[in-house]
This record gives sequence, C-alpha cells and structure tokens, in this order.
Amino acid sequence: MNRLAAAARGDIPADLVIHNASVANIFTQEYESADIAIYSGRIAGIGQGYDGLVNFDAGGRAVIPGMIDGHIHIEDTMMTPQAFAYIAALHGTSTVMADPHEISNALGMSGLEYMFRASQGLPVDIFYGAPSCVPASDFETPYEELDMTAMKSMFDRKMTQHLGEMMNFPAVISGDSEAWGKILAAGNVPLTGHAPGVTGKALNAYMSSGIDSDHECTTLDEAREKLSRGMWLMIREGATFLDLKTLLPLVKDNPLNASRCMAVSDDITARYLLERGHMDEKMRIMIRDGLNPFVALRMVTLSPAEYFRLHDRGIIAPGKIADFVILNDETMDEAFKIHSVWKNGRQVARDDDVFSANEYEHIAPAIHVKVKKVPTAEKIRVKADGNTINAIGVTEGTVITKTLTITPKIVDGFVTADGENDVAKIVVLERHRDTGRFGVGFVKGLGIKKGAVGSSVAHDAHNFVVAGADDESIITALRKLAEMGGGLTVTDGQEVKASFALPIGGLMSYLPPEEVAAKLAETENAAVDLGVKIHHPFMVLSFLCLSVIPELRITDQGYVDITKGGKQKLFV
Amino acid sequence: MNRLAAAARGDIPADLVIHNASVANIFTQEYESADIAIYSGRIAGIGQGYDGLVNFDAGGRAVIPGMIDGHIHIEDTMMTPQAFAYIAALHGTSTVMADPHEISNALGMSGLEYMFRASQGLPVDIFYGAPSCVPASDFETPYEELDMTAMKSMFDRKMTQHLGEMMNFPAVISGDSEAWGKILAAGNVPLTGHAPGVTGKALNAYMSSGIDSDHECTTLDEAREKLSRGMWLMIREGATFLDLKTLLPLVKDNPLNASRCMAVSDDITARYLLERGHMDEKMRIMIRDGLNPFVALRMVTLSPAEYFRLHDRGIIAPGKIADFVILNDETMDEAFKIHSVWKNGRQVARDDDVFSANEYEHIAPAIHVKVKKVPTAEKIRVKADGNTINAIGVTEGTVITKTLTITPKIVDGFVTADGENDVAKIVVLERHRDTGRFGVGFVKGLGIKKGAVGSSVAHDAHNFVVAGADDESIITALRKLAEMGGGLTVTDGQEVKASFALPIGGLMSYLPPEEVAAKLAETENAAVDLGVKIHHPFMVLSFLCLSVIPELRITDQGYVDITKGGKQKLFV
Repeated sequence: MNRLAAAARGDIPADLVIHNASVANIFTQEYESADIAIYSGRIAGIGQGYDGLVNFDAGGRAVIPGMIDGHIHIEDTMMTPQAFAYIAALHGTSTVMADPHEISNALGMSGLEYMFRASQGLPVDIFYGAPSCVPASDFETPYEELDMTAMKSMFDRKMTQHLGEMMNFPAVISGDSEAWGKILAAGNVPLTGHAPGVTGKALNAYMSSGIDSDHECTTLDEAREKLSRGMWLMIREGATFLDLKTLLPLVKDNPLNASRCMAVSDDITARYLLERGHMDEKMRIMIRDGLNPFVALRMVTLSPAEYFRLHDRGIIAPGKIADFVILNDETMDEAFKIHSVWKNGRQVARDDDVFSANEYEHIAPAIHVKVKKVPTAEKIRVKADGNTINAIGVTEGTVITKTLTITPKIVDGFVTADGENDVAKIVVLERHRDTGRFGVGFVKGLGIKKGAVGSSVAHDAHNFVVAGADDESIITALRKLAEMGGGLTVTDGQEVKASFALPIGGLMSYLPPEEVAAKLAETENAAVDLGVKIHHPFMVLSFLCLSVIPELRITDQGYVDITKGGKQKLFV
Repeated sequence: MNRLAAAARGDIPADLVIHNASVANIFTQEYESADIAIYSGRIAGIGQGYDGLVNFDAGGRAVIPGMIDGHIHIEDTMMTPQAFAYIAALHGTSTVMADPHEISNALGMSGLEYMFRASQGLPVDIFYGAPSCVPASDFETPYEELDMTAMKSMFDRKMTQHLGEMMNFPAVISGDSEAWGKILAAGNVPLTGHAPGVTGKALNAYMSSGIDSDHECTTLDEAREKLSRGMWLMIREGATFLDLKTLLPLVKDNPLNASRCMAVSDDITARYLLERGHMDEKMRIMIRDGLNPFVALRMVTLSPAEYFRLHDRGIIAPGKIADFVILNDETMDEAFKIHSVWKNGRQVARDDDVFSANEYEHIAPAIHVKVKKVPTAEKIRVKADGNTINAIGVTEGTVITKTLTITPKIVDGFVTADGENDVAKIVVLERHRDTGRFGVGFVKGLGIKKGAVGSSVAHDAHNFVVAGADDESIITALRKLAEMGGGLTVTDGQEVKASFALPIGGLMSYLPPEEVAAKLAETENAAVDLGVKIHHPFMVLSFLCLSVIPELRITDQGYVDITKGGKQKLFV
C-alpha cells in the first residue's frame, strides 16, 4: 500500500507538517488557513488536522509555491551555479531555467557539462536550455561551434529539456537550414525565442518554426502582437532591462493573460541579487504597480511551470514536489519579505542563512583558459593608411552602438588613442585556440583618459577585449587577463590597478556572492579613476564585441557591422 | 531554405489563404480582420496581403480554432470512430480525447487496437487514453483484465499519451498497489481522474498519485475545492449529465480559471449529436448562460490542448496545425452556426456535407462476439427459497439504484416476474468466454408489463443483460443477442419485436449516424410498447450492471452492492 496516499489520508504521520499556514491559492485568489502535509519530498495534502514527525508552526504566515525564474544567464552574475543558487534560494526561488550560452561560447560542450555538474544537489533546481546560437554569428570566434548535431547530443544525453533562446532570428525568418535544423533537432520541447522588434510577417515566419516564447518585448504594442499570435511572454526585469511596468497592462487589462505571461530576469548581477533580490523583487514590483498579487504570483509560479512543462511544480497541491516559501506576513504585500524557503520538503534557507553542505564546493570545468600568444605593443600599432577612420560610438543607456567617422590622432605615422578626446584603442584577442589573432579598432564614449580596461567577458565569443588610452596599458591588461586565465582588469602603464579573476571559462568566479559584488565594484571603481564615466563599464565593454547588434562592433576578426552585412574597414 | 518560413514571409504563395477572416483571438478578446495563410497543413501566418495557390473568401465571418472535446466515450454513441468523426466534424470538432474503456472491456487489447486503427485518416484527430479500470471491479467479468503491465504496453506501443479516467478512486485513495502501479506505468503524462464526491483528505490522497483532472463534479462547492487543489476541471455537458450551468460561476467569477477548465461530453448519443451538436452546442450553452464568448472558446480549444500537452493546436497561430472553423456570422453568438470546418488546412465539412473518401469504410475488429451457451428457460427459473427477496430499485433521472425488499410473485414454487407490479426478472449472461455463467435477479421500476428488453451494452464488462416479464421472452432476447453478435433487442414470447445489431464488440454499429439514431429510437419505441415508461431504457438497463455505483447491481456473478462490500443474496 502506498505510503504517500496514507500520509495524505492522515493515517500515518507525514514527514513534515507546516501548521497554521495561510496558503495563497491562485485559483480561488484567497488565503486558505490550513496545514500542509509533506511526505517523501512531495506535498501529501492540504487541510486541517495533519500530524507530522516534524511539525512547524507557520504562525498564520502566507505560504506560496517556490518561485520560478523562466530565463536567466547565470554566468552573467559572475558566480558559480552554487553561489547563485544560495543567493537565489534566500529570495524564494526554487527553480530556474538557465540559458548557458555564455559558458558554451567560452568552453563549448564541456562548459555545458560543467554547469550541469555544478548544478546538482543545490537548494534551487537549475534546468538548462540547449544553447542555440554558438557562435552568435560567423564573425565571432567561440571555443567551438555548437551545430545541429551538438543540439541533438544535448537532448539525447538528457542534459536539457528546452531550446535556449534562438537569437539568430534573421536566420530563422529567412528559413536558413542550419537554424531550422537546430530547432527541429530539439524536438517537441519548449522552444524559447529572442526576437526584438520582430512583428508582422517576420514574426509569423519566426513562429512558424515552432518557437513559442520571447523575452525581448520592450513596448506594449510589440508584446500585445506577440501574445495575440500565441507566444508566451517572458517579461524581463533584471539589472538593466526593466520591462515589467511597461508590459503589465497586458495582464491588468485581461488577467487571463497571466496564464501566458511570466516575469524573468535574463541578465542580473550579484549586487542586484544581494541588494534587491530575485523573484521576490519581481513580486514587489508587480504588487507596487497595482497588479492583483495572486495574478502576479501565477506569473512566477504556475505559468513558467506550465510553459516549461514542469508538471511536478508551480502550485502547492497534492502530489507536487514540496517547494514552497513562507512569507513574513499573513498576506502578499509590497514588502514581500521572506521568512523561510523549503525545497523538496526541507528548509533550505531562512533569514540570511542557507542550509547546505556544499555552499562553496569547488567544482571546476575540464578546461582552463590558457593564452600564451599575447601580442607586443609594437604588433598592435596601427599604421596610418589615411586620416579618417571608423570608430565605435558608445552612448550611455543603450546597447546599440553608432558608426562614427573621426579624424584620429596620428603620432609618428601611427593612429593612436587620444585620451583627451575620449578615443580609446580597442583590441580583441582570440583566446580559445591561442592563435594570437586579434582585431584592432577605436571606440569613442567610454571616457578613458589614461590606462586601460580589459575583460574576458566579451559577448558572445568571450575573447579578451581591452580598451585603453595607450598601447603599454593595453598590453599590460592583455597579459594580466592571460595570467589570471580570464577576468576583469584595470591597468595604467605597466601597473595593474585592480583585477578580478574569473577562472571558470573567464566568466565566473569561485567566490561567494558578497565577494563577487565587492570585487566587481572595486574593479569598476579603478576604471572610474582612469576617467571612465559610463555606468557598468565592463558590461558596456563586453557588449562591444557582440556582432549581432547594430551598428559597429569589434571581434578578433576586426570591425563587424551586421546591418551592413559583415566585416568593415578601419580607414574610411 | 525552409518553405514554411517563406510562405509566412509571403515570399512564396501559401497553399491556401483564407481571406477576409475575423479571427477570434482569445488573448486580445477581439476579432482580428486578417488573412490566414496555410502551408503544408500548418498555419504559416496571420496578417494582411497573403496570396495562395487556393484563395477562399471568408466574407468577414468569425474564424475559431478547431474545437477539442477533452473527454468522451465514443462507443456510447454506438457509432464507429469513423461515423462519430464525420458527425463531430460537422459541428466544428477537430480533436477528441477518447476513453476506450467500453471496447476494452468488451474486446480487451484488440478492442483498443480496433479503435486505434479505425481512427486513422479521419476529419477529426482521435487520441485515446489508456483504459485504467478494466474491469471496473472484481465483481465484473470483462473480455480480459488490463493490468499495469497492459498499461505499460499501451504506452510503449505509443497507442496512447494519457491515462484514461481512473474510476477506481477508492483503490487510489487507499494506496492500492495495483491502482498505483497502473498510474506509475503511465509515466509523466496527463492522468485523468473520476472522483465523484471525493473531497478533503480523500481528495488529497487521490491527487497525491498525480491524477490531475476530474469530470465528475456536479456541485459548485466540490468543483471549487478540486480546482483550488490544482485539478484541471472537465465540466461535463452530455446527453444526460448537464453540469455546465451549475459550474460556470467558477469561470465567470474569475476568468483566469478558464485556463484550467474545459467543457467535455463524457457520454453523448447519436441523436444528441444529430439534433443538438457537439462542441458547438457547448459554446451555445455557455454563451447563452452569459459567459464571455472568448473565455468560453478557450475552454473548448486552448485549455484542453494545454492539459493534454497537445502543443501543436488549440490556437490559430503560426506553426500550429491548420485546424479551424469558419462560423456563419461575424461574431460568436448564441446561434454559433458553423459555415465550414477545416482540418490540416483542408476543408473537411460544410453544411451537411463531410468531405472524406472513407466515410463508412468497414474496418472490423479482430474479434467477434460468439455466444453459443444460451441457457434454456428451465435453467433461469428461480426456486423459491423464501418469500422475501432483494430487488434492484430503479428511479427515473438517476443512475443510483436502491436495494428494495419485496415479496415476489411465486408460481409453482418458483419466483417469477410480475408485470402488473412492475417487477421484471433480470438475467446477465457472460459472453466473453462463452462459459454460460449467468446471474439472475429482479428489478422494479422499468415498467415492463410484458416481453423483454435485452442489450450487450452493459457497463462496464458488457455482458448480455435482459430484463423481462416472462422467461420465454427473456430467452428469445438472449438468443437474438447471441445471433446478432451483440446489440439491442425487444421481444415478446418467441417473437422479436425490434432489434439493433451492434456487431463491433456488441457496442457499436457500422451504420451512419442517422441510421444509428433511427434504429435506437425504433428499438426504444418497441420497448415502450411493452409498457416501459422510463426514458432511455437501454441506457438505464446497461447501468444496472455497473458494479461500482451504489446500491444494488447485477453481473454474471449475481447481485453486487459495492456499498456493502460485494456480492449480495437474492433471498432476504
């Protein structure tokens, strides 16, 4: 006779009973005063009069299902999956759907294997999508290309149950066989999309592939069109993209749409997680914005569970896994403070404390970043083959760059950086095969007056990128990046002013969240000392290499402008 | 390059374009004036300015997704899957989720195979659940028992993608290993339930097995509790169970609940389908009852698609299969008249016409009903071992019976039927193994004054059941049933007054819908001539054998009362 059923009937003691809970019910939109009985990691029953081997008095506090983040890139927090999970758990997160395309660019399949391995046994379940766009374009040089055969392997090996964001929307729309092959290799699984500004017939073509969600809507009109076409909407609210308030009217006007919408993070920083929170912060934002808290709750629990076909979670219901969160208050309000977090029926977090043995266990990827071929200062000089050049124009607050035509400073027949006029030299050095190949260009708008800033976080191929006011500082930065096996650095001449090692694929640190946030702030402050005025300078720097966003970009292959079809020349 | 994408972009002509459509959109709750472009059986795009190899002007009429019936027993229509599909298609149905437990009781696995085979290539997609309760109880004798191993076979053979209604709710609640084994053998699929009146901790125990839907709610309180516990609600509206109006307040009060509710048929007759319709009739009832038509539409399209994880249908959206219905009017209103029905991008029905080559193709099951051991009149005599007996009490309008204690008519030392006092003898003859085993009892309330009525439709084991006013009429009926290989019959003495052969498992006819309805009506009218007053006499008769419903029932093993734990005696 089955013992879960016996615990549900109340005929045997449950493993755990949460007494005196106010269970938030998204269906009745009421708080049900009840006990929650848990047996063998699953909810046995909700009701009155259960008795457990362990009994916990919730004191009338509200209890909600463990929350689910439908889209996040863990690597961009610069934390390991473990460190991320511990801070996310503190904020009521029980499940995240992660797209590992950063580590997959940096370390290929072994990067995905590392993430998968480092994500077992954590207080948060992390499910990975198959990274569908490695490389982001032919103009980038990742560790290895993950083609449609690689997609098939990931699904065959059960490493993934959904397709990661298909960013190459032009290829899908054009019917490109490689892009469609990746989608079809994924099979009958959730196919997540990324289609900024795609509407009308292009949207039809994109969706005809089976892609059925998107997290790139920034206007109500675009979001309404995608929703009406049958797309699930992931509404993004992270460190830099703040779309919730803009798009919530879709749900406010018709709460039934909450069944097709979710709130997601996409990109988020360690500092944001520490200072503001994770899914709890999204709940606060939605509630403050006037959304019915029960409707908001659906968007971070059942709706993502349904979209990702995780039929074992998303509600507090008999037979589901016992992932739930006890709030500090009796109802869900703007404070939305968390009392304790429970995973598979075990308390995993409370106040500032996460209960786990392997919090900072050192799980390392199979591959380490080893770069020997760092060019000399002489090699990166640019002979003046003209007196007008193209330069990357950076503007605060947008990831879009401009193509600027400028008259550069020329010294001894060489085009050089010009700190006084905010023109920095930018070098991207291939780091995956140690070919020594590099691209050189110029960038205006970073505010570098002296020295150099460098990073191995450089979307999407994550080669080394350094921008600086003089060649010596640039070479010092490249050498420091090589020495650290990846990371962030700020240099001036031969001196390293600050640095933050990211030994895991050049993207992530083994440090705990507080130290990650502190090291990033310290390195950013050193950049400010060089004159850098732009916010999040390392993030801005990293996006200068992403070849699939307009206009001018730089990779190890040189200038690229996707809007002009590919590689661009330095001299006009 | 992919051609579906090209058709979506409008760069190549679509196979078909429905021009000038008013596409009913459940997300915006508006009608969108647009073209619908179809390529290779799928929706390529919705929008303006598409051109097709074939162009069809919808004339501004409303277009809705093909409708989905989430729960039906096709056998109970007495039609083949083909005949059922043709009449259902006329009424805008594109997909049905059928529970084949009747044919599985009558013919075992080969019955399921027959249904599966007879359901290919029809204008309606029919998906079968794995029949989870064959037999309904140990007190019934089906063709063969389908145990947990049989469940596994059905899933391994891809004959089914969901578990059919788990009617043996007491076994699930008690944690019975056989019942749980069947559920676990099904795996991670929708597990459909049947739990009338089950609430509180018993509901917790039932749901702890993973069963996540129910179609048996008849009161608002019960439905609200099940919904709040996380069950998907199938709201039943068939020939005899009319639950829509009672339960719709759940959706009216909170339209978000439409994402967890669907309208289903369960049991329905050929006549109902012909005279009233199918899913279109449910839409009429919901709209007449004041439900927002777009919310109602979700309950017969996207919600059942989501519950059954049919991710390729339920909405008119790019990439989905092109199942849609053009209505006669520009909006969804109480008339809800259908103009034409399209399946996989082909018109399959219009007005009274279904376009299909194999409309009444004769697909036969591997096994035919062959009964040779029909008892003689002498054998079914009942020696009077007392002067008080238990009799089955039938009441109009409920499937629940009573246990009556009556003083029977005794002639020559034998208890006999008594037409004047509405006491009929009832005989159930085992027909699957031709053992000759039969059970005898008495039933009050059918109104049989003379002759006998007999049927091979006898839930759930579907043995032969005959009730009559004299033994000769009963034997004539049993012989006629044996001769026909199953069916319905009405006899008087040695004369057969009417009969309707059901050669497919003794449950279904090869005739088209109109003739099925006419033959059933003709046979029922002959029963009325015998004095029968109760409505749907053959349906009432068939349920007298269903051992899992209170109170007194009869099978080939004799009287059974599940509320008293099993077999019961004739004499008090």
